[in-house]
Amino acid sequence: MPTLDDLNHAAPGDVVATLGAVFEHAPWVAEAAAGRRPFATVEALLGAMREAVEAAPEAARLELLTNHPELAGRAARDGAIAPDSIAEQASAGLDRLSEAEYARFAALNADYRARFGFPFILCVKRHGRASLLGAFATRLASDPETERATALAEVFRIAAIRLATLVDGPGTPRTTGRVSTHVLDTAAGRPAPGVAVELHEWVSDTETALVARAVTNADGRTDAPLIHGRPVPIAAYELRFRIGDHFRATQPGLPEPPFLDIVALRFGAADPEGHYHVPLVASPWSYQTYRGS
Amino acid sequence: MPTLDDLNHAAPGDVVATLGAVFEHAPWVAEAAAGRRPFATVEALLGAMREAVEAAPEAARLELLTNHPELAGRAARDGAIAPDSIAEQASAGLDRLSEAEYARFAALNADYRARFGFPFILCVKRHGRASLLGAFATRLASDPETERATALAEVFRIAAIRLATLVDGPGTPRTTGRVSTHVLDTAAGRPAPGVAVELHEWVSDTETALVARAVTNADGRTDAPLIHGRPVPIAAYELRFRIGDHFRATQPGLPEPPFLDIVALRFGAADPEGHYHVPLVASPWSYQTYRGS
Amino acid sequence: MPTLDDLNHAAPGDVVATLGAVFEHAPWVAEAAAGRRPFATVEALLGAMREAVEAAPEAARLELLTNHPELAGRAARDGAIAPDSIAEQASAGLDRLSEAEYARFAALNADYRARFGFPFILCVKRHGRASLLGAFATRLASDPETERATALAEVFRIAAIRLATLVDGPGTPRTTGRVSTHVLDTAAGRPAPGVAVELHEWVSDTETALVARAVTNADGRTDAPLIHGRPVPIAAYELRFRIGDHFRATQPGLPEPPFLDIVALRFGAADPEGHYHVPLVASPWSYQTYRGS
Amino acid sequence: MPTLDDLNHAAPGDVVATLGAVFEHAPWVAEAAAGRRPFATVEALLGAMREAVEAAPEAARLELLTNHPELAGRAARDGAIAPDSIAEQASAGLDRLSEAEYARFAALNADYRARFGFPFILCVKRHGRASLLGAFATRLASDPETERATALAEVFRIAAIRLATLVDGPGTPRTTGRVSTHVLDTAAGRPAPGVAVELHEWVSDTETALVARAVTNADGRTDAPLIHGRPVPIAAYELRFRIGDHFRATQPGLPEPPFLDIVALRFGAADPEGHYHVPLVASPWSYQTYRGS
Repeated sequence: MPTLDDLNHAAPGDVVATLGAVFEHAPWVAEAAAGRRPFATVEALLGAMREAVEAAPEAARLELLTNHPELAGRAARDGAIAPDSIAEQASAGLDRLSEAEYARFAALNADYRARFGFPFILCVKRHGRASLLGAFATRLASDPETERATALAEVFRIAAIRLATLVDGPGTPRTTGRVSTHVLDTAAGRPAPGVAVELHEWVSDTETALVARAVTNADGRTDAPLIHGRPVPIAAYELRFRIGDHFRATQPGLPEPPFLDIVALRFGAADPEGHYHVPLVASPWSYQTYRGS
Repeated sequence: MPTLDDLNHAAPGDVVATLGAVFEHAPWVAEAAAGRRPFATVEALLGAMREAVEAAPEAARLELLTNHPELAGRAARDGAIAPDSIAEQASAGLDRLSEAEYARFAALNADYRARFGFPFILCVKRHGRASLLGAFATRLASDPETERATALAEVFRIAAIRLATLVDGPGTPRTTGRVSTHVLDTAAGRPAPGVAVELHEWVSDTETALVARAVTNADGRTDAPLIHGRPVPIAAYELRFRIGDHFRATQPGLPEPPFLDIVALRFGAADPEGHYHVPLVASPWSYQTYRGS
Repeated sequence: MPTLDDLNHAAPGDVVATLGAVFEHAPWVAEAAAGRRPFATVEALLGAMREAVEAAPEAARLELLTNHPELAGRAARDGAIAPDSIAEQASAGLDRLSEAEYARFAALNADYRARFGFPFILCVKRHGRASLLGAFATRLASDPETERATALAEVFRIAAIRLATLVDGPGTPRTTGRVSTHVLDTAAGRPAPGVAVELHEWVSDTETALVARAVTNADGRTDAPLIHGRPVPIAAYELRFRIGDHFRATQPGLPEPPFLDIVALRFGAADPEGHYHVPLVASPWSYQTYRGS
Repeated sequence: MPTLDDLNHAAPGDVVATLGAVFEHAPWVAEAAAGRRPFATVEALLGAMREAVEAAPEAARLELLTNHPELAGRAARDGAIAPDSIAEQASAGLDRLSEAEYARFAALNADYRARFGFPFILCVKRHGRASLLGAFATRLASDPETERATALAEVFRIAAIRLATLVDGPGTPRTTGRVSTHVLDTAAGRPAPGVAVELHEWVSDTETALVARAVTNADGRTDAPLIHGRPVPIAAYELRFRIGDHFRATQPGLPEPPFLDIVALRFGAADPEGHYHVPLVASPWSYQTYRGS
């Protein structure tokens, strides 16, 4: 990955080669930014790109929106969209829709395009399935002017995430969040090692999808956060801990079924760039959680 | 409902008319007890019935077992069993089995009867579905002598519950437990009223069944315990609280989705005659529970 | 204690004999109320007395204030005040002041009387020592009109408490609060019996005074609330639990000194008629408390 | 500070100059260890010194004990003891005793020396005042053989701590513990910054001594642990948090006095080399703590 310093000193063509896809099908944004180098921070580079978009003629900005691929659309399905978009849509599970879901997206996309004249644009990496569909419904009811601004704001969010993975430098915009946990055994006064943990997303009121699986280490933590290095999709989650197995092993004589076996902590994340530390502090007969730090 | 005092002074035939069904198809047990009146407590009356069974010839005791209806068996299905048995099996959902489940019970019953010579007897009011099937599997692996003692112990448990509903008097054997809850809002320092609460039983690893539904009153409690007046079936449960609605109403400005929306407290009950008080003590960003009193 | 019904049918002279001291040195208030009988509730009787005071000429109202004894004043010291006042002042410890404290009260009383023309009146049963001195300081800085209203409101509070102890009837004004606790052992999932509990009042930033002492019973509660049947004095409190002794007895092998030995829960009470339930929910390595219900 | 590598290559005389005081008045221990160089870890160097002591004639070992200064003894008072001992005794407050305490130590020292023939030796850095006096009483009741072994073990503990401050190298023996905290506001779902925290030691049943004072930073933590870089003296502690000020600032409208103002967490530390993380997780109406990690 090139450093910001590399880019500051590269030929303009190389800058465009590196950053041309930050704004989909719009290398002219990278070109404009190349002309304003050097930048002290990646944030400043992103700012220059944003200003280039904002200073462009209305038609160019509209084209920027129009050129975006639909979510779960025909082009995405046929692989006819930019590689970044493919990965982003896959991260939201949009490449694994059922036929019914695919049809629902097709209908929503058609309605949206009919109403606003450009495809529905959302930084999908920041949304879980339910949130994505909720945003679709909300924005369909918006007025054209507001919606154009909203769509552009989403384009900038997408650009920030892409840029952060393309350039290594100081002042990188914050585009990632974290979900983490730890397990403390308050009957023993020690972290609980070896506890199986699963993170699920509530994709609808009745359905969950596995996001991550881990086992706590000697310090009662997972070796890596359960979500990290990316935005935390806006969603309701459920952390499941097989804490009963821990207490069976450490405190013989508990009843069967035990008072606590699988503990499920449901929590919502509304801030994709936030840190959600959701610990389990438990004895065989009590537990608690909180949003920690 | 007659009092113990009534029974102490009734004609022997009336005693048998009242208590004849406490031991299924075995009015001779009530008859024997009638001859040992008066009793100071219902517990003493039950003890006399138990002693009558224990003093009876081996053949009579075996007949007592043999006469018991199968769980979810053909006789139960056809209504050809004692009314108490019908109600007891219904309380465990055994009258609402799918064809596959019914077939599974039929196979287990056949195996059990082939091995031990009498039907599988369990005080079903004390068991949830998973516990019932677990007991079936465990006891199929038992040896005949132990199993005969276990079956008899279950007959006595069934008798205790039946007796407690037939006679009103001092020293009634404890045959009921309780599941209760309350909701405390630690951000406001007050009970949380109007919170929708549901109690579900985990009937298998993947399936829950609704047991009770309530809304908390001004004191943060439900007007009645969620389970009471009967044994608490041995099972894993899940209490669900729509606490997010409470905080939406009392603390405007929380993010959407909120950190806490539906809170699910999973707990196991292994003591059917116990009191499981499982409160929810919550702020918008933390909660805890414990087995209380 | 006469019932409200008794009073409704008593001779006017007997009513005055019973209720004459509700307003200090002002039997005319009882007399006026006697003329408005019958009353359906004690609250209504109190309301009639309050209205009699409010309808009286300004001079009579001022006399009502002027006739009140000073707090910790010379008259109180010499026993020259009404028996109710003696008991009330004793309940706040004003009969056990050091010479320095006595002098401080004398100075405050003199300042107050010089400024407002009547003695400082406060329903002392509703205040701890620090709150009482704080109220003294605040009210010395008040303006005469506000202060006269405040003093009268305190006279009504004193009257309500006195009345509630003199008449037995429906609709008694709420003049009592409660401080209670219970101890739950979350390592064992059971109430903790036999735990020594003390309630102290922080009478100043550095000094506490013992209010009550108890031992938890089999249900982890004290047989009676630690404060009840009277207002909870506005104050900072400290509940001390010798929980270490409980865990030493039930969980051999804990280190010495234990992580938890004496647990001190400090809490403030600002609502004398409120219920402060302050439980201790503890394992050997964790504890929590909250204002419960 | 010399590195272990430096010492491995130094002249024997320089080794003795550096490490001669690790064992009080016994440079021969360092000399013996110098002859066994090189050492891969500081732990191995310490092991060699320990073995030198264990291999020495009984008389030399006894002399090692006899040469140790008394705790709070005349020599300490007159400054006639090794600089390390001065600092160690000062760390336990033994240089600030009242006359009565000094007399008590003098009597205990005399009893101990009369009984065992050498002074009472304790690694004072690992003990609070109450623990130190408790150890004195316990060991006075010990038998001579056990006590000689105990005294020698304490000499090794003192040596380990001294050595760890004299040599910089891999495998340094663990001679330090930690007391730390953080404050979480569960009403806001955020760390609580700006909270004044004090750590006190309970030096007797009625007296506390301030150990450290700090204010929580933006992350709700103190910039440095409250005790670190040294053993945690075995003692009962009290953490005091002025959490009421935090809630006054962030949640206007709470009553005065507030339910929570100063929160005092009392906890005991029995493991001087352990980490005692004692957080405060609080809303205005509830709080909890636990031994964390």
